[in-house]
Amino acid sequence: MKTLNAQLAEVEKGQVKITCEFSEALTQQHGFFHAGVLTSIVDSACGYAALTMMPNDVEVLTVEFKVNFIKPAKTDKLIAIGKVLQSGRTLTVCEGYVYDSNEEKLIAKMQATMITVQQ
Amino acid sequence: MKTLNAQLAEVEKGQVKITCEFSEALTQQHGFFHAGVLTSIVDSACGYAALTMMPNDVEVLTVEFKVNFIKPAKTDKLIAIGKVLQSGRTLTVCEGYVYDSNEEKLIAKMQATMITVQQ
Amino acid sequence: MKTLNAQLAEVEKGQVKITCEFSEALTQQHGFFHAGVLTSIVDSACGYAALTMMPNDVEVLTVEFKVNFIKPAKTDKLIAIGKVLQSGRTLTVCEGYVYDSNEEKLIAKMQATMITVQQ
Amino acid sequence: MKTLNAQLAEVEKGQVKITCEFSEALTQQHGFFHAGVLTSIVDSACGYAALTMMPNDVEVLTVEFKVNFIKPAKTDKLIAIGKVLQSGRTLTVCEGYVYDSNEEKLIAKMQATMITVQQ
Repeated sequence: MKTLNAQLAEVEKGQVKITCEFSEALTQQHGFFHAGVLTSIVDSACGYAALTMMPNDVEVLTVEFKVNFIKPAKTDKLIAIGKVLQSGRTLTVCEGYVYDSNEEKLIAKMQATMITVQQ
Repeated sequence: MKTLNAQLAEVEKGQVKITCEFSEALTQQHGFFHAGVLTSIVDSACGYAALTMMPNDVEVLTVEFKVNFIKPAKTDKLIAIGKVLQSGRTLTVCEGYVYDSNEEKLIAKMQATMITVQQ
Repeated sequence: MKTLNAQLAEVEKGQVKITCEFSEALTQQHGFFHAGVLTSIVDSACGYAALTMMPNDVEVLTVEFKVNFIKPAKTDKLIAIGKVLQSGRTLTVCEGYVYDSNEEKLIAKMQATMITVQQ
Repeated sequence: MKTLNAQLAEVEKGQVKITCEFSEALTQQHGFFHAGVLTSIVDSACGYAALTMMPNDVEVLTVEFKVNFIKPAKTDKLIAIGKVLQSGRTLTVCEGYVYDSNEEKLIAKMQATMITVQQ
C-alpha cells in the first residue's frame, strides 16, 4: 500500500474504497497506470471488504481473482471499490471495481474469492 | 518493470521468463512478495510471450486474466513464466506460472487473454 | 436451450433474462441443478445481452467466462440474468447472475468476455 | 453425466479423462457442441481428479472456474481431461482441457478451484 501511495478512503460493512494517486513509478509504456497497480489496489479493497464481515481474530487471503481490463487507466487518481457479494464461514466472494478520479469511467472489474484463516 | 526490479531473463518463441528480486517495497503484511507483484510480472511474461508470436508492428494488451494463489510467495526471487496456449489473429490465450527462486514451488497460476492491436 | 427447457423471459437493451424449469435430467448427485446447466443458461443470457447492443448482421461468441458457485441450486426454476458492463466494437464484457425462482437467492455469478464476429 | 452421454474413460491419481459422444441435443446454433456441454464435462473431470487425491469420506464441490473457448467444438467426440495442479486440505486447484476426438485440437481450457467437504 505504501509503495503504491494507496489510501484507505472509506470503510463500511461489506464495502471498502481505496484511492491511489498517480506517480511515474506506477505507469506502463503509455504513461497510464500499470495493470498490476490496478489489480493490487482492487485486490486490497476486496480483501478489506471481506474482513469487515469477519470477527476480529481472523485474516483474509486471496484464493484467486479474475480481472477484466475495460478502459485505459488514464487518470490522475484511481478509485478502487471492493464489495462483498457473499460472505460464508470459509469463503467470501467479492466484486471489485476500479474507476477514474471522477468515479465515472469503469477501468477494470474484478471477481474474487477470499478465504478466512485463523491468525 | 523498473519499479519491480524485474528482469527479462529468457525469450523464445511462445515463451518468456521474467525474474524479480526481493525488496522490502514489494512485500505484504507477512514480509512475502505481494500478490500484486506476482500478478504484474506474470502478466508481463504472458504479454511478452504473446508478442513473440506477432509481426513487429503490433502491440499486445491484456483483455483479462485469472490468477490462483497457490503457495505463500516466500522466496528471495520470483520466476514468472508466460506461455502461449493459442495464438490467433485477434486474441491470444496464455498460461502464466510464478515459481520460487529454485523453480520448484508453484506460487501462482494465471490464465490470460490478450488482444493484438495495431500501434 | 431446448435440451435445458430454457425460456427467453425478458429482453431489453443491455439486459436479458432466461428461465429454466427443473427436470430430473438437469440434476447432479444431490438432486439440485447441475453446475453445467447454470453455466449454460447464464452464458446464453450474457451472449444475448451482448447481442442487444449490436447491429443486426453480427454474431456474438463467448471468448471466456468465470463463474463463482455461491449457493446450492436448490429451486424449481432458475432465473439467469445477463447484463452488459461494457460494450466495445470487438469485445463486450458482461456480468451474469443466476437466482432461484423468487429472484432472491444468488446461486452463481459470472463475469464474461464476448467477441463480435461478422456472420 | 447421463444426460450428456458422458463416460469416465480413465482415472489415475490426480488425473481423470471423460469422453462425450456427439448428439443433436448437445449442439448450439452451428451444430457444434454447446459451450455448456464442454464446461460440464471438463468441470466433472476436474472434480473427479480432485477426488482422487482425497480420503474416501469426503466430497468435492466446485468453488469457481474460468474457461477460455479456443476453437469451435467441431468433432464427433469430446475428450475432457482434468488435472490436479495443487491439492490442499481445504482447496484444490485444477487445470482442465477439452480436446477433439483425436486429442489434438485444444477446444477449451479451464482453471478451477474445488473445495473439500465432509459428507
